[in-house]
Amino acid sequence: METAMEHWLTKRAALIPEALAIEIANGESWTFAQLYNESILLAEKLANHIKKGQHVGLLSNNSLDMIAAFFACTYLEAPVVFLNTRLTKEEIQTQCQTADVNLILTTKNLKEKAAFDSVTAYTFSEIHQLDPIAVPIAHTITMHQLCTMMFTSGTTGKAKAVMHSFNNHWSSAIASALNLGLLPSDKWLACLPLFHIGGLSIILKSVIYGMPVYLLEKFDEQTVHQAIMKHHVSIISVVAVTCSRLINALGEGNYPESFRCMLLGGGPAPLSLLKKAQKKGIPIVQTYGMTETSSQIATLNENDAFRKSGSAGQALFSARIEIRKRERQLPPMEIGEIAVSGPMVTTGYYKCEDANSSSFKDGWLLTGDLGYKDMEGFLYVVDRRSDLIISGGENIYPAEIENCLLSMDAIAEAGVVGQTDPTWGQVPVAFVIKNEPELTSDQILAYCKEKLARYKIPKHIKFVQSLPRNATNKLQRHKLLEWL
Amino acid sequence: METAMEHWLTKRAALIPEALAIEIANGESWTFAQLYNESILLAEKLANHIKKGQHVGLLSNNSLDMIAAFFACTYLEAPVVFLNTRLTKEEIQTQCQTADVNLILTTKNLKEKAAFDSVTAYTFSEIHQLDPIAVPIAHTITMHQLCTMMFTSGTTGKAKAVMHSFNNHWSSAIASALNLGLLPSDKWLACLPLFHIGGLSIILKSVIYGMPVYLLEKFDEQTVHQAIMKHHVSIISVVAVTCSRLINALGEGNYPESFRCMLLGGGPAPLSLLKKAQKKGIPIVQTYGMTETSSQIATLNENDAFRKSGSAGQALFSARIEIRKRERQLPPMEIGEIAVSGPMVTTGYYKCEDANSSSFKDGWLLTGDLGYKDMEGFLYVVDRRSDLIISGGENIYPAEIENCLLSMDAIAEAGVVGQTDPTWGQVPVAFVIKNEPELTSDQILAYCKEKLARYKIPKHIKFVQSLPRNATNKLQRHKLLEWL
Repeated sequence: METAMEHWLTKRAALIPEALAIEIANGESWTFAQLYNESILLAEKLANHIKKGQHVGLLSNNSLDMIAAFFACTYLEAPVVFLNTRLTKEEIQTQCQTADVNLILTTKNLKEKAAFDSVTAYTFSEIHQLDPIAVPIAHTITMHQLCTMMFTSGTTGKAKAVMHSFNNHWSSAIASALNLGLLPSDKWLACLPLFHIGGLSIILKSVIYGMPVYLLEKFDEQTVHQAIMKHHVSIISVVAVTCSRLINALGEGNYPESFRCMLLGGGPAPLSLLKKAQKKGIPIVQTYGMTETSSQIATLNENDAFRKSGSAGQALFSARIEIRKRERQLPPMEIGEIAVSGPMVTTGYYKCEDANSSSFKDGWLLTGDLGYKDMEGFLYVVDRRSDLIISGGENIYPAEIENCLLSMDAIAEAGVVGQTDPTWGQVPVAFVIKNEPELTSDQILAYCKEKLARYKIPKHIKFVQSLPRNATNKLQRHKLLEWL
Repeated sequence: METAMEHWLTKRAALIPEALAIEIANGESWTFAQLYNESILLAEKLANHIKKGQHVGLLSNNSLDMIAAFFACTYLEAPVVFLNTRLTKEEIQTQCQTADVNLILTTKNLKEKAAFDSVTAYTFSEIHQLDPIAVPIAHTITMHQLCTMMFTSGTTGKAKAVMHSFNNHWSSAIASALNLGLLPSDKWLACLPLFHIGGLSIILKSVIYGMPVYLLEKFDEQTVHQAIMKHHVSIISVVAVTCSRLINALGEGNYPESFRCMLLGGGPAPLSLLKKAQKKGIPIVQTYGMTETSSQIATLNENDAFRKSGSAGQALFSARIEIRKRERQLPPMEIGEIAVSGPMVTTGYYKCEDANSSSFKDGWLLTGDLGYKDMEGFLYVVDRRSDLIISGGENIYPAEIENCLLSMDAIAEAGVVGQTDPTWGQVPVAFVIKNEPELTSDQILAYCKEKLARYKIPKHIKFVQSLPRNATNKLQRHKLLEWL
């Protein structure tokens, strides 16, 4: 049963046209009527270049243009494929091939990354100069239609495009509202890139809730601090390291009453951090989620933070979490694979039948993460996927870097693991067996720079004689970690 | 696509077991854990008597038992048919036949009304004495399955059972939250009968939002006043007459800050009442809705109350309203039939193919109400269905009373209309042409008492020589209104 709904932005602009929708740090802002008008205008300007159903690449850092371009595509019924601006041209080209993208909307300073044969790229400035033409605008959303795609790597290291339907995004926004409430004074800060689910989901909450969003291009502790202190931001998303920096920036002061919640993702918060936050009266809601769940799917509320320290809490209303081993549900306290289900969970990866058939069983997504539930049903995540490295908020899959290294003839074997880093949380470190004795670290790093986004380039190269492998010859990354 | 969800009460009891769920005026209250445990226990006691898919009649005034019985049935996957306690035994029997009910759960003082051949009735006290047996409990809700049925009459006067799926109730609760917000301090008052959608929808909001509800058996201005003043009720549903009484009860005082909203249904509020409320700082949200829309589907928010006086506002997020004439959508300012759509709108009347095929077109429900939209899309309801009488919050369809009168041999013709009444809003008045000269009003009233619920019995009988009819001999009720 396909369910239709009036387009969220059309509806919101009709309900509260004059209310603040998006505000940026330079003081510029759009009401819902402006956001609607800009999006429709952009759709009319793009209408000659985008066909219904066409996949449109969006390569941009956070900006008003980027948001209007996203909504313009939804009005033309063209799914948006979000491209990470930190990727190399080669990586972007691969993702465009994977997701059937032959048109990219981008900014002037990123256009060079979209300059390859198989796609046409338009910058926002170029689009603004096009003439609008009258076209049929889709003011109705078919909930189960594809809205967006975002890339995630998975354990193989091969980037897969997670498909989000409108219903996935809607259900995520609703589940979050049932968890955190909806206050008339709410204003969410978006400082994560919108090409990540943690960023985009806030923009969608804005139109679904009728709530203003304070948009930043990136996390910067002083700007975020000011957003809370002076611009009435009430909710922000953080990871342990950014949370800690914000608390330091706060010093002896306190947040104003308008501030009500820090959503903390990316693994459990250290107890010392929770205690600092408590002392400052900062409510911390710890979360568990991934691109595939359209944002958080489990949260640990402030009241349980100490009683259930280390837990990611319970599945949101309308979501479910089970612990499984060989398709069997495990009893409490036993560790297995975390399986999730609910209307916010993706229906699959685009054109990726192998991953789809191995990851989805009877409506459940097997996340690859390991964990257990306690007797009260609280989730404890033991390992975020096997060997995943999270560096400055970006997911890095060791296998992808290993594949890159192994593509050098001078390298025989390679193993990559994450090393704890005070700035980035983790950074990738590579263990390499040479094929050619004269190979240097610099040569390897120069090669990687051609192939990999900056954040994926190993911080250190360690030359070794052999790599730890198990009986089936599988690399034992946990032993590499011991070597560090 | 059937979507499943963990049973709302199971989930809510797992998330916040110790939070207050239902509170009643005598001080008794249940947490979500208690509500859950009582419901499961009742399901286990009823398991030998209720089969999955069986329609269970529920005949009760508002009580904790009634709520637990409702949830018990959902756990046994048995749709609940709500029966109006003010109906006569004969009317109840007809409704049970219409809705395929052969089992009724009721209270001791109402059991007599359920005592007829085709059904078995159990009182709550009898059920409490049964032994619980271990049965499979449905902890998963299939969203598009039938959850409840409630009767509405429609213009023909024949009671039709409106089918509500779980998804209808869910979508109604969500749309309301997106309109009114979800505050941690919210506590909704339920003083409408739970066998009406306006009552039941509040109980469902309680488990979906995780919000306490203050439950009364009926509206009583002093009790309601105390609920707001002393028991932190934040939201109540009223009609113009009860709103006015509450404002009078408030006298020179003011409501505490915890109180944030009166939802006013049953037609537009008189301007004088809006002004009184404004003076007292009481936010009034005017609403439009019906059993078929699972509660309100349009609301006029406080900010627009004066600017759009007389309007029912705009369709809730996820809902749509159109004005139609002969299957064509009318432009703004033109009066036509109000059509509604959205996930909270019923999929139809139970076993009522005629009404279903005439009332539902391409996913839209033709309400039978007349209205128009202004240039900004605000709805104005011109006439609530043709000739509907609303008396003390109950819908009365003239045709039903006329049919009853015409079943007396001594009556030749009959026409019924609503007369304005200071206490009830409206009361039915009957115009009658006699067949037998010696027929008296008392005889007619005595006859009606056998057949009709008290509130449907005509307040006055007026004997006439002829009734106004149009060219096709259809009764012109608007002319009867002029006669009054």
